[in-house]
This record gives sequence, structure tokens and C-alpha cells, in this order.
Amino acid sequence: MNIAFVLRVLSLLLLIISAFMALSIPVALVFGEADTIPAFLVPIAASALFFAVMTAATRRSPRHALPIRASYLLVVLSWVFASLLATLPFLLTGSIPRFVDAFFEVMSGFTTTGASILSDVQSLPRAILFWRSMTHWLGGMGIVVLTVALFPLLGIGGLRLMDAESPGPTVDKVTPRVSSTAKILWLLYLGFTVVEVVLLLLGGMDVFDAVTFTFGTMATGGFGVYNASVGHFRSAYIDWVITIFMFLAGMNFTLYYRLLRGQWRTVVRDSELRAYSGIFVTFMVGIAINLLRRGTISNFWTSLRFAGFQVSSILTTTGFATTDFAAWPGFSQIALFVLMFIGGCAGSTGGGIKVVRLVTLFKHSLTEMKYMVSPHGVYAVRVGGQVVRKNAIFSVYAFVFLYLCTLLSAILVVASSGADVVTSVTAALATLGNIGPGLGAVGPMANYGHFPGYVKGYLSFVMMAGRLEIYTVLLLLTRTFWKR
Amino acid sequence: MNIAFVLRVLSLLLLIISAFMALSIPVALVFGEADTIPAFLVPIAASALFFAVMTAATRRSPRHALPIRASYLLVVLSWVFASLLATLPFLLTGSIPRFVDAFFEVMSGFTTTGASILSDVQSLPRAILFWRSMTHWLGGMGIVVLTVALFPLLGIGGLRLMDAESPGPTVDKVTPRVSSTAKILWLLYLGFTVVEVVLLLLGGMDVFDAVTFTFGTMATGGFGVYNASVGHFRSAYIDWVITIFMFLAGMNFTLYYRLLRGQWRTVVRDSELRAYSGIFVTFMVGIAINLLRRGTISNFWTSLRFAGFQVSSILTTTGFATTDFAAWPGFSQIALFVLMFIGGCAGSTGGGIKVVRLVTLFKHSLTEMKYMVSPHGVYAVRVGGQVVRKNAIFSVYAFVFLYLCTLLSAILVVASSGADVVTSVTAALATLGNIGPGLGAVGPMANYGHFPGYVKGYLSFVMMAGRLEIYTVLLLLTRTFWKR
Repeated sequence: MNIAFVLRVLSLLLLIISAFMALSIPVALVFGEADTIPAFLVPIAASALFFAVMTAATRRSPRHALPIRASYLLVVLSWVFASLLATLPFLLTGSIPRFVDAFFEVMSGFTTTGASILSDVQSLPRAILFWRSMTHWLGGMGIVVLTVALFPLLGIGGLRLMDAESPGPTVDKVTPRVSSTAKILWLLYLGFTVVEVVLLLLGGMDVFDAVTFTFGTMATGGFGVYNASVGHFRSAYIDWVITIFMFLAGMNFTLYYRLLRGQWRTVVRDSELRAYSGIFVTFMVGIAINLLRRGTISNFWTSLRFAGFQVSSILTTTGFATTDFAAWPGFSQIALFVLMFIGGCAGSTGGGIKVVRLVTLFKHSLTEMKYMVSPHGVYAVRVGGQVVRKNAIFSVYAFVFLYLCTLLSAILVVASSGADVVTSVTAALATLGNIGPGLGAVGPMANYGHFPGYVKGYLSFVMMAGRLEIYTVLLLLTRTFWKR
Repeated sequence: MNIAFVLRVLSLLLLIISAFMALSIPVALVFGEADTIPAFLVPIAASALFFAVMTAATRRSPRHALPIRASYLLVVLSWVFASLLATLPFLLTGSIPRFVDAFFEVMSGFTTTGASILSDVQSLPRAILFWRSMTHWLGGMGIVVLTVALFPLLGIGGLRLMDAESPGPTVDKVTPRVSSTAKILWLLYLGFTVVEVVLLLLGGMDVFDAVTFTFGTMATGGFGVYNASVGHFRSAYIDWVITIFMFLAGMNFTLYYRLLRGQWRTVVRDSELRAYSGIFVTFMVGIAINLLRRGTISNFWTSLRFAGFQVSSILTTTGFATTDFAAWPGFSQIALFVLMFIGGCAGSTGGGIKVVRLVTLFKHSLTEMKYMVSPHGVYAVRVGGQVVRKNAIFSVYAFVFLYLCTLLSAILVVASSGADVVTSVTAALATLGNIGPGLGAVGPMANYGHFPGYVKGYLSFVMMAGRLEIYTVLLLLTRTFWKR
């Protein structure tokens, strides 16, 4: 492996991230928080220096394709170092004094989990909150994808890097050039962001709130700037706008590209989109009825609004809340718990197992039953009109299996700290699925601050494993990877 | 499908079951419960009549191989009708007055689940309790396997029937003849039963207790005849004897056959057995330490005894208890919760997903990682020294997937009755995995009686689906099965 080359790419990535960090400086100036500015300047200067050194040092190193192992290593290192850099503003301002807490918070940001260790978000400086929400927005479409999009001149195997970071079983190459695909995805993402900000401003939000909540929505992240999350606004309009944009952010972004090119038939026939929409409607209506019947909410439309918001929030793995759903009746809680296993669509900013994987496995398991009746038949699994190859089905199954193994390990780690059953299970699930809030002691009105350091550390690892779709991270723990 | 032929086999099976039911009559006489005898005579007479009619009616029908669909249908019908027959003693004596309750109890018996709707077991007549434990013993090795073993003259495709009922991915044909294999398995089962009864008698139990608790142990069932389950005896000796026999019952019975033939190398090298033993020891020690550290139990050996008993009980899906583990610290509860997903070995009387499946999937998912590093390599998955074919891996994955889907459906059904999260999840898991007790309101010192009828009905279905390993039951719900 060419370590110098890996470090050079890494230094570029950190430079890009620190450029976005610089956007917090005007925020600090506007809100009269000039004392926070040094906390941003230090990491910016550090990454600029690192970049300069690496560029000088590797000037003469050849520009070659990155070997496959190095790609995986690079992606994981990118996430770890980006998170280390991003902790600095929190640590230097004293907003989050302990390192493990800051690392958890930042990893939760980049992975768009939205789990927080903060009990009082509103007490933080606005510039810090802006940076906190920015980590969502950067992580949503992928920090490596962003690097690939901005630096087509790198000459490295970009698709492989995107593959290692992208949400979903396969990267749908919209265009033949990897860097163009990355660019198109980021432009679509930017477009939606602008539209949502405008719609939220029309709903009466101020610019700061509109931008930060949009970052949280489009990245399916979940960090807010109020302790009561979206419930702070008590507005049906804002609730529905965010409900819809969470849903849109949980869709496959390549479908938007197809829509722009007029291929609406492909979009309408997409099996994943149909399943995703079906799940959304079914759970929204089911929970709305349960809330009405149990007397939690007395009006049908209000019930539908709260149910719709929460289903959209959990299904897309955003994690915003408009109410304390950990106090909802058992059936509604269980329904949200089931949703936590699903996640968004492939190629979205959402986390979790992803709808397309579950659709594939569901169709395959039906095929297995056909073999039981007619053992000599030949059956193909079709998803979205295309036959799924056997090897692809295998890797989907293996993914789900490793996902569940990682989940069990996280449940045991959380439980070892003395947490109760519901808290342990949902804390593990909400971090691995990049959702954020769970039930019990990690419900939407609670936080992760009360866990001991080793639990926060392990959950940070779990969030990264979830965001990088397990394989990339677990691979680095195997002997096979380091052999030779 | 030859309905007459299916009914004829069914009538034989019911006759066999009623023959075992007749064993309750001497029990009734010994304990002065002669008034319960008619409740046994009615179902015995009914099945004798049914058998006579079917034999006369189908005397001239040809003896031919059973088509594949009919095999599945026959196995499911066998379980349903056997359960219907077995409810009669409960209903006629008034021990369990409601049909849905009696059906749940009996299905729980045959499937060796051990979940009960009874809050006061000790108040029932001994003859009824004997029959209740007998359903475990019959269901443990399989009522269809028993039929196959006892009627080699049937001339039907016995292996297919055994396949549809047997616990584990494949029936290991110990002998070329299916009926001999079935006979050997039942003889081994009988042998262990006799040994355990003797050991329990030596520990001071009376004959009735020793026999009923042995039925519950060897079948990995869990029905006891005391409200405090095995905890009633407060004896370290009895606890350890049952701990060991539960563990032995959760092993693959074909390994015992190999041991008898001196093939101890094969047994020692068995990957499933190694994993099974490893899980047992790890969880026993882990829980024992947790109980000590949290001050639940102050002595190490006592802690090990209680932890070992409970781990053996849950891992093998028996469900006996020596203490109220639903009141244990969070980590111990979670550890038991994780064990609920594992289950015994293939070819044992235990339920759950089964160790060999998890070993296979674990090894396969490691192989998938090798492909990530070297995409053009060729890797085989080996379990127990043998290469597992791709199709076999597929069906294991599909099994686990359908298992989890069935689990989710059961969780939602239980939750719809207003149960809390822990109760809903563990009630679903404990019935599907044929374990019995869960946590929360279905803990070892509680019962399933408080659920509404529709929940008990669905959980009865879930227990059967779990015992018949999902496919056999779900297949009957597909269009493919009924086509043509």
C-alpha cells in the first residue's frame, strides 16, 4: 500500500471539511459569538498545514490507481480523521469538554445518526450548533463522495471509494464518469436543500433555524437546535414540510436524476420506491389509528400528522421528533421499533438495512418456497424488472446477517453498563441504523450522555459501521485484510 | 392429492397419540382421580373409531408414494389434528375451560415450547398434568417421526415427512432406511429419558415428578408440575442433573449414534457441537459474573449453578426456571434475550434458529469479505469438514429471514393487544423459538393467560411455525402451493 498517497488524499479531504467549517465563522460574527472563532481557526489552520506538507512531500509520487485494500482503508481513515478534526471546535470552546463525548457527537453528526450526548442543546453557541448541523449535511451524501466530486483530477479509483461509502448494495452509475455521478448527486442534494430552506422560511422560521433543520432533514440526520426538536415550532405546516422532505431524502437520488431526464416510467415502476411508500403509508395510518383508539390524541388529522412525522423520521432514519413517542402506547412504540430495522432506500441519505435489500430477500425467500414444491424448477429473483444475480443475493444476505451480529454485540455492550432491556436494544439499533433516538432511557426527549465512556466509544464505532454499511469497517478487523 | 390416503395416515397418527394418552389412566387410578378417566376415554374412543373407518374406507386405495405437496400438507394437518385431539382431556375435565386456551396449551406442549396459560399449575389433577407433560415428550422427537418409526409398512416417502418436521436444515440419514433412522432416534431418546428419570429419583424426587420433569427436559419443553418450576426443589443436585440433560437434549442425536459406533473423532470435530458448547460456557460464566457483581447472588458456585441452569434452559429452548430471571440485572436479561435467537443443535429436540445455521452464516459472511479483498478468488464454506453447497446456504439464509419476518409479525400482533415493548418482543420470540417464558409480563413466574384470544390463537400458529421450521407452514399460505 502506498501510505504517502493515502495520506495525500486524506489531507485533501480534511481541507475540504475545514473549508465548510469556516462557514461557522460568519455565523459567530452575526450572533456576537466572536470568542468561538479561534476554536474554528485552529482546526482550519491545522488541516491547511497538513495539506501543504503532504502536497510538498508527495509531489513526485506517481499518480496511480489505488489498490482495493487501500480504498477500504482510506475510507475508514477518512471518517476517523474527519471526526477527530471536527471535535476540535467542541473541545476548544468547552461546549463539550470530554473527548469521548465530542467524538460521539461528531461521529453521530457525520454518520447522520443524530444521537446526542447533550441534555441542553439550546445553551450552546449558535456557531457551534451550526457546525454540529453541518456535519450532518456533509455526511449525508458522503464526505468521500464529496471529495470524489470535487477532485476529478485525483486519478484514483473513485467508484470503489464511493462503493465503500455509499448507502445501498450498488452504486447506480448515472453517468459513465464516477466524478460526474458524484457531482450530480451533490447538486441534486444542494437543490433540495435550497428548496426546503425556502419552504421553512415561508413557514415563519428564521434563517438559522431553517438552515440547520434543513441540514438535519436532507441528511436524514436529526440534530436540531432546540431541546424539543421539531416539536419546538408547534406548527402543522412545518411538521408536514419536514415530513415530506425527510421522505424525499430517504428516496434513491438517482431516481430524481431520471425524473429530470423525463424517465418517469422507470421511477413509477421502481420496486423499492413502491415498497418504501407502502411501508410509509401503512405504518402512518396504523399508528394514527392506535393513537386515536388509545386516546393519546383525540383528533384524526392531528394524529395523522404526528404519526406521519414520526414514521417518516424513523423510517428514513432521521430521528427528529415532534412529541415524546417513547410515551406512546405499546403498539405504536413497537411499530416504530420495527421501522428501525428497515431504513431508507439505497442511494438515499438514509441509513438502516435499506428497503431494496429487504425487498430482495423477501422475493428470494418466496422463490425458496417454490423450490420446495417443484425442486427442479428454475426461478429468478427480479427486483425493479431486473434479474438479481445469485452472488448479489448472497452479499445482501451476508450484509443483513453481519448487521444483526453487530447489533447483538452493541446490545450486549450497552447492557453491560447496567442499562435496561428496552434501552440496550434500541440504543444499539438507533446507532447502528443511524437513527438517533430510541426508546426507554434513549427516547427522543432523553440523550446518550448518561452512558459510561466505553459505551459511547463502542457506539461511535457502531455508528460508523452502520454508515459505511458494515463490510468496509468489519473488513479491517479480519486477518484476511492484513495478510501478505 | 389423494385425500383419502392423507386421511388414512392421519388416522394412524391420532391412534398412536391416543395410545400414549391412555397412559394417563393408570396415573388417574394411582392418585385417586378416577373422575378424570372419561375425559381420556372419549378422545381415545374417537380416534379408534376414526382409524377403523379410514382403514375400512381406504382398504382398496393403492399404496403409493406421497406427492411432495401432500407431504407438507400431511405434516401440518397432523400437528393441527393431534393438537385438537389433545385438548379434549383439558376441556372435558374443565381443567382449562376455554378452547383457545386449551389449544394454546397443547400446541405449546407438542411444539415443546412450554408457554402456559395456567397461573396455578399445582391445582390441576395429576392425570391431566401427566398428559400435559406427555405432549412434550411426544412432540420432542416429533410425532410424525414417531409415526414413521412405528409404521415402516406405510410405504410413504418417510424422509420427506421427516424433513418437513425435523429440527435442522437436513436430516442426517444415519441408516439408509428412513424408518430405521426414525427408530434409532426414538430409542436413543427413550434411553436418555430412562437415565434421567433414574438420576432424578436418586436425587429424592418421587416417580411422578421425576417422569414429568424428565419429559420436560428431554423434549426441551419446559412444562413443570409446580408453580415454581424446577425452583420448587431447591436442590443443587437436581439443578445440575437437569442442566446437563437439557444440554444433552439440545445436542444432535445422530452424534450419540456415532458415539455408540465408536466414531468419537467425528463427534469431537463437529463444528456445531463446538460452537454450542462454547456459547454455553461463555454465557454461563458471563451471567454468573454479572449476578455476582450486581449482588444478585453472593456465592460464586451458587451463581454459576443458577446461571448455568438458565443458560442451558434458554439456549436449548427448554424454558425451565429455578429463579425469576426477569428480575435479574439488565445485562443478564439481555444475555438471555440474545440466547433466545440461537436455539439448540440440528437434530436435537431444541427449537430456535439452531446453532448449525448460525455457524454456516457466520462462515459465509467471512467468505464474502474475502471476495471484497480478492474479487476473483474462489472460496468454499466448510462446516464440520464438509463443503456447504451454495443452494444450502441460500436456504439457510432464507430460513433466517422468514424466521425474523414471522417474529416481527408476532411482535406486532402481541403489541396490538396493548402489551409493552419487552413483553411483546419476548412473547413473540419465546413462542417462535419454542422456548416458553420470556421477560416482562411473560417472565418465568408469569404466564400467557392474560392475553386476549386472538393473540393466543396467533401465538399457537407461531409455535407451530417455529417447530416445523417455518417453511412447511408458510408454504401452505402461498399461492404457489395451491396452484394447479
